[in-house]
Amino acid sequence: MTKWVRIEHQGTAAYGQLDNDTINLCTGSPFENHATSGESVSLADAKLLPPVEPRQFLGLWNNFHERRVADKLFMPKSPLFFVKLASCVSANGDTICRPGSYTNDLKFEAELGIVIGKPAFQISAADADADADADADADADDHILGYTCVNDVTAPTTLFEEPGFTHWCRAKSFPTFGPIGPVIETDIEPDGLVVKAVVNGTEKQNYPVSDMIFKPREIVSMISQEIQLLPGDVIACGTSTGADIMQPGETVEIVIDGIGTLSNRYSG
Amino acid sequence: MTKWVRIEHQGTAAYGQLDNDTINLCTGSPFENHATSGESVSLADAKLLPPVEPRQFLGLWNNFHERRVADKLFMPKSPLFFVKLASCVSANGDTICRPGSYTNDLKFEAELGIVIGKPAFQISAADADADADADADADADDHILGYTCVNDVTAPTTLFEEPGFTHWCRAKSFPTFGPIGPVIETDIEPDGLVVKAVVNGTEKQNYPVSDMIFKPREIVSMISQEIQLLPGDVIACGTSTGADIMQPGETVEIVIDGIGTLSNRYSG
Repeated sequence: MTKWVRIEHQGTAAYGQLDNDTINLCTGSPFENHATSGESVSLADAKLLPPVEPRQFLGLWNNFHERRVADKLFMPKSPLFFVKLASCVSANGDTICRPGSYTNDLKFEAELGIVIGKPAFQISAADADADADADADADADDHILGYTCVNDVTAPTTLFEEPGFTHWCRAKSFPTFGPIGPVIETDIEPDGLVVKAVVNGTEKQNYPVSDMIFKPREIVSMISQEIQLLPGDVIACGTSTGADIMQPGETVEIVIDGIGTLSNRYSG
Repeated sequence: MTKWVRIEHQGTAAYGQLDNDTINLCTGSPFENHATSGESVSLADAKLLPPVEPRQFLGLWNNFHERRVADKLFMPKSPLFFVKLASCVSANGDTICRPGSYTNDLKFEAELGIVIGKPAFQISAADADADADADADADADDHILGYTCVNDVTAPTTLFEEPGFTHWCRAKSFPTFGPIGPVIETDIEPDGLVVKAVVNGTEKQNYPVSDMIFKPREIVSMISQEIQLLPGDVIACGTSTGADIMQPGETVEIVIDGIGTLSNRYSG
């Protein structure tokens, strides 16, 4: 298990690896040459930053069988993705806010986030042959750095403000709408994970990655057939049932056992 | 008139200012402290790069009265924007390609591009009062570095592949689908500009910015009410009538008098 964190250290951003409650700082980053610097800080003393600053932050819609049936949605031919803008990214512990111009409710959405490790374009796709599938999975794995937790915060009123156009990017990209973290776990099997949302201690979402219409490796492989993915890009794999409105003052935790807990308070 | 260009110079990217056919190289960039370095290269010898590498590259749809009427579209309440991914950006002179997996036609769309100069969030909005309008325009101008040409290349079959979801980002973001340039012009009045597309010497689009539903300064002001715009971000203001399919081997020029000509060949 390797858990990458990114922290504020001596006025700049530094990567480190989390070992229980200790962060062993590194030179470089997980996307290039890196080495432990010999310096350590305790997790309790560290100001966590988003573990990555994605140039491209994609989110999926309608990627779960259970939700597709519950919401009477169609079966997608390929991952249905929108963009969360770079300027919405925030860290574990940061407050989720709404700009003064928006007075309606906000939703949390608990999601698994894929973090791309290497430039990925037209990587192998799975097919009907089991050996080819294994090769394709290995090729996807080679381009994925690891996995993180995402709260895909959404302004639903904005999303559906126009009957003739869905404001995917706008409704998903207000500042603070992209909490990611607290870590990137590089050694974990994604298809067995369970994603939970816990609001003020009460579980609101609990769904398995195995219910995804497109699994993490397939998402990377399929999107990369036409789109150039870049190191540090994040793909939020979509959410299942149970995503709900946040009340001012509530704390939303996105919990994925094996990765960690992403905790953010909503100020209202 | 100040025309910023970005070129490959001694193995790295360097900014310069274009003076007729001479590029006067600069240290720094137009987004920070900069000064002329004293070194010059001729435009003919320079390898032009995209004049900026936007972290956030937005494009507008349904932003022209003429096209709205022609296509029987609704009147938008606010700028309808999608995202072109960072990895699709290309330069004047680069070839437009399609990945092997896409065998259908591609479209060119001639557009005016706004380049953001400073972080912009909730900048002044225009209102009914003429003095307040002037203040709002000045505030927008203060956050806009300048203007460039954009070819918003689109894969229309992909865009409408799913009846239940419009693939805005995907259909607009294949590699090479985002030619921008050749320059950023910082001293120009945008509302009087005319945008043209010329394909192999034949004019295919010719429309005035004055026909925009949301003018450039309004676009920046309105989007910034909820979205944090960043230095180097590009907003393509949408296209009017006449955008069309490209034939393999054709050269598409986006021409905006006062800014320049963005020229790209489509390889098919």
